[in-house]
Amino acid sequence: MGNCLVAQSGGPTAVINASLAGVIRANQLNPVYDKVYGGLQGIEGVLEGKLYDLTNLTGREIDILKQTPSSALGTCRYKLSREKTEDFQRILQVMEENDIDVLFYIGGNDSMDTVDALSEYAAANGVSRRFVGIPKTVDNDLVPVDHCPGFASAAKFANQVVHGTFLDYSAFTRPEVFVLETMGRDAGWLAASTCLTGDVDLLVLPEVAFDQELFLDQVRQVLEEKGQCYIVTSEGARYEDGSYLSAGKALNDGFGHAQLGGAAAALKEIVIASGIVPRGLVQDLSRAARSSNFAQSAVDVAEAFELGMSAHMRSANPAFTGKVVGVVPRTDFSTDEYNAQFYAEDASKFANFVRHFPLEWILPNYRGVTEEALNYFRPLVEGEPKLIYENGIPVTLQPFNRR
Amino acid sequence: MGNCLVAQSGGPTAVINASLAGVIRANQLNPVYDKVYGGLQGIEGVLEGKLYDLTNLTGREIDILKQTPSSALGTCRYKLSREKTEDFQRILQVMEENDIDVLFYIGGNDSMDTVDALSEYAAANGVSRRFVGIPKTVDNDLVPVDHCPGFASAAKFANQVVHGTFLDYSAFTRPEVFVLETMGRDAGWLAASTCLTGDVDLLVLPEVAFDQELFLDQVRQVLEEKGQCYIVTSEGARYEDGSYLSAGKALNDGFGHAQLGGAAAALKEIVIASGIVPRGLVQDLSRAARSSNFAQSAVDVAEAFELGMSAHMRSANPAFTGKVVGVVPRTDFSTDEYNAQFYAEDASKFANFVRHFPLEWILPNYRGVTEEALNYFRPLVEGEPKLIYENGIPVTLQPFNRR
Repeated sequence: MGNCLVAQSGGPTAVINASLAGVIRANQLNPVYDKVYGGLQGIEGVLEGKLYDLTNLTGREIDILKQTPSSALGTCRYKLSREKTEDFQRILQVMEENDIDVLFYIGGNDSMDTVDALSEYAAANGVSRRFVGIPKTVDNDLVPVDHCPGFASAAKFANQVVHGTFLDYSAFTRPEVFVLETMGRDAGWLAASTCLTGDVDLLVLPEVAFDQELFLDQVRQVLEEKGQCYIVTSEGARYEDGSYLSAGKALNDGFGHAQLGGAAAALKEIVIASGIVPRGLVQDLSRAARSSNFAQSAVDVAEAFELGMSAHMRSANPAFTGKVVGVVPRTDFSTDEYNAQFYAEDASKFANFVRHFPLEWILPNYRGVTEEALNYFRPLVEGEPKLIYENGIPVTLQPFNRR
Repeated sequence: MGNCLVAQSGGPTAVINASLAGVIRANQLNPVYDKVYGGLQGIEGVLEGKLYDLTNLTGREIDILKQTPSSALGTCRYKLSREKTEDFQRILQVMEENDIDVLFYIGGNDSMDTVDALSEYAAANGVSRRFVGIPKTVDNDLVPVDHCPGFASAAKFANQVVHGTFLDYSAFTRPEVFVLETMGRDAGWLAASTCLTGDVDLLVLPEVAFDQELFLDQVRQVLEEKGQCYIVTSEGARYEDGSYLSAGKALNDGFGHAQLGGAAAALKEIVIASGIVPRGLVQDLSRAARSSNFAQSAVDVAEAFELGMSAHMRSANPAFTGKVVGVVPRTDFSTDEYNAQFYAEDASKFANFVRHFPLEWILPNYRGVTEEALNYFRPLVEGEPKLIYENGIPVTLQPFNRR
């Protein structure tokens, strides 16, 4: 065979590089490809032929890559479109010029759509180049997999910060609410996961239209019962008419997605304006949740790495294209038997769908999530990888796109 | 002897409970006092006689207390005043009623002033009750000690989040700035510590009056040189006239301190308004930095615990009152010989002074800090304690004030 190429796309995660490391390591165990190239800055760099040879990373470099957060190859928000076939032609040309048989694309649902479109285009044009998707997203909004690498580490970070700030808040007696915000534009998985701590009094998700009066009633009730009220909200919390709580600050990120931030601040203002309490505190996890390697979940790192290996191993089959590797959805949520099963599925099944947090897992009146939901989350945040520290922080590799 | 009492005051830290654990453990090793009481909700609870018996915590409970962030006894913002002697009388009365010889007060400069005032008042009134201070603060603004328990863990958290979000930011090629904000009202220690990462392009501290034109020039230069600009600011960043960058949002916390938040957002707006780049990203560490046990510095935990023990041990001397225990200031910043030395000093030396980040350690043009400053910070963030995890997060004790 010839060479392979790996690229990363979309928002970074704490373990997206573990999947990259998995592909590189698998090829060292079984050198199906002569070279493993990294494409810099996602598909944008691939279009420009910007490649970096990753074939011979040392064992130590691979270990450090696994604990390096963010996208070590760089990323992009450029979306390929089935209408813009010159991009497809250019990618096939770059692959041909560099004798690249397979492109592994690590990304979210947009990227899985790219895998689908590229493999279709190649087949339709009688080109034998192949395309394989490796999922990642902190939002956990990909169908049809059980969960997505990157989510569990973000959830573990969020859980730890929620518990720490809950204790901080609990040390005071002043009448005030605490509102913590997580990422999650359309799907509330990350916010919902923080109910694992047992600290969340009220949970506001994008999946349930925000009812201001009902919410304020609940704030009043919780404050009366407990003398405090710890609230977690997803950035995508929205009113019945679809407008975001943070709407005043909504911009556009050029992808047709609203650029969010500020749901927690909005909730705080709503509570204060209602006169229930005179003060509120806001903690916005923002990007820290997805890029904090010191809170990596051991399960997440292992699965991200293994999915990279699995993608490489399956790609040895010359018919393997237009596929995404993933973790099989669970039907049994008894946590003590958790064991990830890997499989591959057509990329078209992933493309452009959003998996919302299940409505049947949401308790009424913003009171959090069901026991089944907690059993879904519980095994994912388990375990802490042994990190290599230097100068007080986990060592990371110099990003390849900045060398 | 009779009993002793420990109380916590002011803002929580990630290791303030380690100092509490040190007092409790020292008394188990040498039971100078019959009982170790905790005063709930700081001096407010002491005034109301709200005590909790901590004498016989188990070894495991003490280990968990050391990794429990925030003030496990609860805290308050109530400030004792030398003019309000009825409070002093009431405290002495509570001590007498409960046969308490010594009050250990863990807090910042306000609390060390309280220790000073109480011991003066007792002496002036011929009362033999004694008062000992144990310092804590994430701001590191106490004179005359080298550094203060709580600071190093907040710095370690900040360093890790800075490096993670720097890598996240570096994955993209969009023209935008990143601005991270740390706590630090009057002193920029915490913000300055993040220069350890090597990632900080520009640093804005309260110690240097903010010069908008100079700052924007530097942003332009950095963006030209590197294509990116990562900025760290202290919440207390201010203009020449003393007004805060975040002034629009300034409230009052009832202590005569401005209630801050929003320096990073202000800097982002200033950059965007200047037209240099169309976008900016903000990450406000807020309370997460001071309450995150999963980022505890091993040096910090050890010193906080040992200061608690040291306070207890020294208090066996019946002349020991009106004193604060602390870490001796370093004069040699060669980091490989770091070894904390403990001492005790009159509380009056701590009271109500603010130690600013040294001007001679600040590089011109917002370009960070000197090598000497880095050598000061370096040993403090070293080491990661082995934490006990359950359900994916470090186990904590149920706060005593919420039982």
